[in-house]
Amino acid sequence: MAEDVSIPFGPRRVGLDVATVIGLIGGFGLIIAAIVLGGSPGSFVNPPSVLIVIGGTLAVTTMCCSITEMGSTFRIALMTLFYSRRDPSEAALQVLRIAEVARRRGVLALQGSVDSLGNEPFLQKGLSMVVDGTPGEEVEQIMRRDLQATVQRHARSTSVLRRMAEFAPAMGLIGTLIGLVQMLGNLKDPETIGPSMAVALLTTFYGAVLANMVFMPLASKLERNSNEEALVNNIYVMGASSIGRQENPRRLEMLINSILPPPQRVQYFD
Amino acid sequence: MAEDVSIPFGPRRVGLDVATVIGLIGGFGLIIAAIVLGGSPGSFVNPPSVLIVIGGTLAVTTMCCSITEMGSTFRIALMTLFYSRRDPSEAALQVLRIAEVARRRGVLALQGSVDSLGNEPFLQKGLSMVVDGTPGEEVEQIMRRDLQATVQRHARSTSVLRRMAEFAPAMGLIGTLIGLVQMLGNLKDPETIGPSMAVALLTTFYGAVLANMVFMPLASKLERNSNEEALVNNIYVMGASSIGRQENPRRLEMLINSILPPPQRVQYFD
Amino acid sequence: MAEDVSIPFGPRRVGLDVATVIGLIGGFGLIIAAIVLGGSPGSFVNPPSVLIVIGGTLAVTTMCCSITEMGSTFRIALMTLFYSRRDPSEAALQVLRIAEVARRRGVLALQGSVDSLGNEPFLQKGLSMVVDGTPGEEVEQIMRRDLQATVQRHARSTSVLRRMAEFAPAMGLIGTLIGLVQMLGNLKDPETIGPSMAVALLTTFYGAVLANMVFMPLASKLERNSNEEALVNNIYVMGASSIGRQENPRRLEMLINSILPPPQRVQYFD
Amino acid sequence: MAEDVSIPFGPRRVGLDVATVIGLIGGFGLIIAAIVLGGSPGSFVNPPSVLIVIGGTLAVTTMCCSITEMGSTFRIALMTLFYSRRDPSEAALQVLRIAEVARRRGVLALQGSVDSLGNEPFLQKGLSMVVDGTPGEEVEQIMRRDLQATVQRHARSTSVLRRMAEFAPAMGLIGTLIGLVQMLGNLKDPETIGPSMAVALLTTFYGAVLANMVFMPLASKLERNSNEEALVNNIYVMGASSIGRQENPRRLEMLINSILPPPQRVQYFD
Amino acid sequence: MAEDVSIPFGPRRVGLDVATVIGLIGGFGLIIAAIVLGGSPGSFVNPPSVLIVIGGTLAVTTMCCSITEMGSTFRIALMTLFYSRRDPSEAALQVLRIAEVARRRGVLALQGSVDSLGNEPFLQKGLSMVVDGTPGEEVEQIMRRDLQATVQRHARSTSVLRRMAEFAPAMGLIGTLIGLVQMLGNLKDPETIGPSMAVALLTTFYGAVLANMVFMPLASKLERNSNEEALVNNIYVMGASSIGRQENPRRLEMLINSILPPPQRVQYFD
Repeated sequence: MAEDVSIPFGPRRVGLDVATVIGLIGGFGLIIAAIVLGGSPGSFVNPPSVLIVIGGTLAVTTMCCSITEMGSTFRIALMTLFYSRRDPSEAALQVLRIAEVARRRGVLALQGSVDSLGNEPFLQKGLSMVVDGTPGEEVEQIMRRDLQATVQRHARSTSVLRRMAEFAPAMGLIGTLIGLVQMLGNLKDPETIGPSMAVALLTTFYGAVLANMVFMPLASKLERNSNEEALVNNIYVMGASSIGRQENPRRLEMLINSILPPPQRVQYFD
Repeated sequence: MAEDVSIPFGPRRVGLDVATVIGLIGGFGLIIAAIVLGGSPGSFVNPPSVLIVIGGTLAVTTMCCSITEMGSTFRIALMTLFYSRRDPSEAALQVLRIAEVARRRGVLALQGSVDSLGNEPFLQKGLSMVVDGTPGEEVEQIMRRDLQATVQRHARSTSVLRRMAEFAPAMGLIGTLIGLVQMLGNLKDPETIGPSMAVALLTTFYGAVLANMVFMPLASKLERNSNEEALVNNIYVMGASSIGRQENPRRLEMLINSILPPPQRVQYFD
Repeated sequence: MAEDVSIPFGPRRVGLDVATVIGLIGGFGLIIAAIVLGGSPGSFVNPPSVLIVIGGTLAVTTMCCSITEMGSTFRIALMTLFYSRRDPSEAALQVLRIAEVARRRGVLALQGSVDSLGNEPFLQKGLSMVVDGTPGEEVEQIMRRDLQATVQRHARSTSVLRRMAEFAPAMGLIGTLIGLVQMLGNLKDPETIGPSMAVALLTTFYGAVLANMVFMPLASKLERNSNEEALVNNIYVMGASSIGRQENPRRLEMLINSILPPPQRVQYFD
Repeated sequence: MAEDVSIPFGPRRVGLDVATVIGLIGGFGLIIAAIVLGGSPGSFVNPPSVLIVIGGTLAVTTMCCSITEMGSTFRIALMTLFYSRRDPSEAALQVLRIAEVARRRGVLALQGSVDSLGNEPFLQKGLSMVVDGTPGEEVEQIMRRDLQATVQRHARSTSVLRRMAEFAPAMGLIGTLIGLVQMLGNLKDPETIGPSMAVALLTTFYGAVLANMVFMPLASKLERNSNEEALVNNIYVMGASSIGRQENPRRLEMLINSILPPPQRVQYFD
Repeated sequence: MAEDVSIPFGPRRVGLDVATVIGLIGGFGLIIAAIVLGGSPGSFVNPPSVLIVIGGTLAVTTMCCSITEMGSTFRIALMTLFYSRRDPSEAALQVLRIAEVARRRGVLALQGSVDSLGNEPFLQKGLSMVVDGTPGEEVEQIMRRDLQATVQRHARSTSVLRRMAEFAPAMGLIGTLIGLVQMLGNLKDPETIGPSMAVALLTTFYGAVLANMVFMPLASKLERNSNEEALVNNIYVMGASSIGRQENPRRLEMLINSILPPPQRVQYFD
């Protein structure tokens, strides 16, 4: 009967986040197409300008926080590309399925489920504590502490990304001002005015692209994913601690539905 | 006496929303007139610029959320054109009329009303539950859950539209910067400066038009309609659950008036 | 003794609002003087530009709300020109005077006062209900519902005016972009560059003038007047319901002073 | 022993506010130096531009409020130049000194202190009520009403100054647009382009100077001084009412310290 | 056994703050490199422009507050360069170690620890009060008052830095307007247009650099450090008062963990 308990497909489908990838590729594709069709794509690549905008934004943002925070922000931002959305309804059904098994055949029967939950380490950790006989209150406390730590880490990364979205256009403006002052100081050769101004504008261009097409969308996405993950993990906390307390799974269903948004509520028991 | 119960005209008059349509046609009409009177309307149509601004805004907004959310936002935004305003006072009177019938001739006498409520599916669903004998508390709980789901879906669409209103001018700026850099790199032929700059400015123009004449007004309208619909549906929830609980219709009138804005309060019973 | 009760001068002096009129005339006078002294006032009048900015702002704002709301906003905004400020202290003294008469000579003695209150319809309506024998609680409830409806109507108009103050400069920018694109497309005749740019800038000028010298000050003024009127009407509600409940006028004075700003508190009884 | 009671130096040292004066002179000094060193200071003085920016800002701000409010704002803003900072610790010590005298030698012994408090009229008024035998509760109520009126008057002036800081750059932009349109309409004489543009930019310059170097700093300063004055006056209210209630001065010290910021707390009794 | 108590390394490692220094050097390094590589670094140094932006920003900010506040802001801002981050976990472990010693060998055994706490003066002061026999409640009250004073001083400095970040670009704009007006008034010599405009733009450049690369990051950093220091000092207050009240160190551990962010919680007692 152990097959009944193993979960065929979990709520987290690892893979590329379609919306983020489509948005990134679509947006940058349009920009690059417009540049290439314009004839001279080379004039849009200027390593010193890239350095001023990207390097300057990183430097100024580093001043605001610490090097550790910068690192974790990049790791977390990168994960928004590769983590697919998680489905709270499926997580709820999975938890209810496990709770029913525990109810009918005892907590020790969950050992098989625990082993098969490799792609849901948070639930796995909680359930293995339950199987080991940790009381439900303690399971809840430990899991909730973990959950809170993740939410805090994400919130800090979101605020670092938002700060970058503010500093990038400012560094772009600073770079353009440098270019303009240099150009205006050498007005004697009118031939060079155009190309010099073009180079001066590049930093403003880079700053606008970085802020509006990278940092701001990533910050919004991260906030969204963090809320979604917190919701799923909250369901896991409720499930593991309810099993640990040997409560009726119907009460668990009611409890989980109270935190689910209405369209995602589940009805597992008749 | 069943004719007494059937409702001659409902509170929701389906059709075009006059204000939205007048605003859209008036605004775009003025812009187009100014362009045509200026002599060369062709210079305002530039497919690559349209692609950068509209495509870029869609791409970047998609990054922030999910493809499902983008789709539902467009569906809901489109509905602001075709849904007419709903009159809470009429909805209140209709509910009170039905409640009086139920009081005088019993809940089963409502079957005729339920059948004639095709254009108010939310009230219809609630009343048919009442006729089927579902207790008032359960009717209220189920309807309120539905109502909450609609409000949440609208709020998410409003925030997506507001985000588009922020990204559209940013994409317009990015497009203009691309055009300026391309023009400045090819300053040799002075004849082309004017037309090139005109094309470069087009993306800024498109971005300003999209944000101020489409996305922002639609977001405001959607918020407004959502509040109005929630008010009407709230009245329906109150009505159906009050009938289900077999309360005095005078108490229902008092209850409904407490959530209606003062100028729209009703006085059905003497 | 009826003369003792009739009120020689009321708290609301109808006439022009001096501050609004001085501000409007002074501001526009300075702008017009600067234009006329500059030599060619004709170049500042351009009907198509006026249409784009004013028509466009109206169209876009209409999209956000309904045609009824637009109409009531204009009516209310116009009233800020002609309604003079209302003096809460005088309103308080007037109410206390009437309350004293009612206390000394009975409620029926107020018939004369009611007839002479033509320029304070809200108080008149309340007192005539009292004279007709309506109980104080009901008088208060009906008047407070009226008061709330007025405040809500004003708040909606203020928000419509604030939205116009946001859309006017946006429409000005859109008009200028149209003009610039048209000018840049016809660069061959250098003679026309100046006048074309002048016309293009006119919409920006109109938008800035409308937003900063009309919509924003009117919205602030309306908010201010609405607060003042609500204060005066609140005093009337307190007065009429206190007389209806046949309370001691000294208690009424204390009550009124508790909602008056300190510098406007009154001392009618010794 | 009356000398023991008279206060050698009060907490309010009347004179110029050093920070405001240094800031004003320093800021304007730098601007004027830059203008004079540039060679032609005359080109920065343009009476019509001054009229548009200053007159226009005043006109538009007057529309938002009333003429009385405008007058009191100027009087209060001027006072930030001449009122020196007030020291809450000294005010606390002074009040405690007086309270000790009242405790040891009776309330009537305060007559001498009251006479010597000419430069602290608020405390003087409160104490003279106490000496006249007014009960402590009434003294507190009357003083607190006064205190509240002052705070409200200052808050209104601060908001008028902040509104001016918003309108000044807007009027500057309007003036510059007028100048640009006039210049562009008369492009035939290329000699006049430069000076015309210089004049057009002057209103933007005036607007930026007024907003950032006068209105905004004065509003911040006023807010700060108002908080400080309210703190000192709060101490006076506590002191006078505590003396009126004949409480133990040690209790008064504890009470005062609870509203003082930690670094300014006092220790008068051992 | 006293060695057991002396702390080998404290939670505060004095030295340069790596993130602030790297950010400052990296940011300014990139800007300077871009300027030097552009060929004429001399054209970016203009003492009058520096005076207008830096002097003007200081002057205007001084107007908003007092000279004392300006001084303390600079002292505190400088400290963000030299104070390294403080580790709350280590502070917690240190406090728990001391609490265990006090528990096992009595409060007097702490004399050695107190002497070795030279680099933690706040904890040292608290513990020496405990050793001197001050009751725990009084120790807590005195330390908490100190802590609050520090937090308030930092908050005031943060707001002064944020105000500078607002005024610096405004002074840059004012300087550029002065330069433009001067240049436009002397258009006769076309040779000087370029260099004059270059000089005019320098103030905008200085303003943008000061605001975005100095004032804003320093304000953010200061806020961050202040929160961190308050957390560490809060642990010290808890520790010293808990030792003074002779509580069980295990209860202290629980208490400290309740205010630590989850990832930094400690487990000292098995």
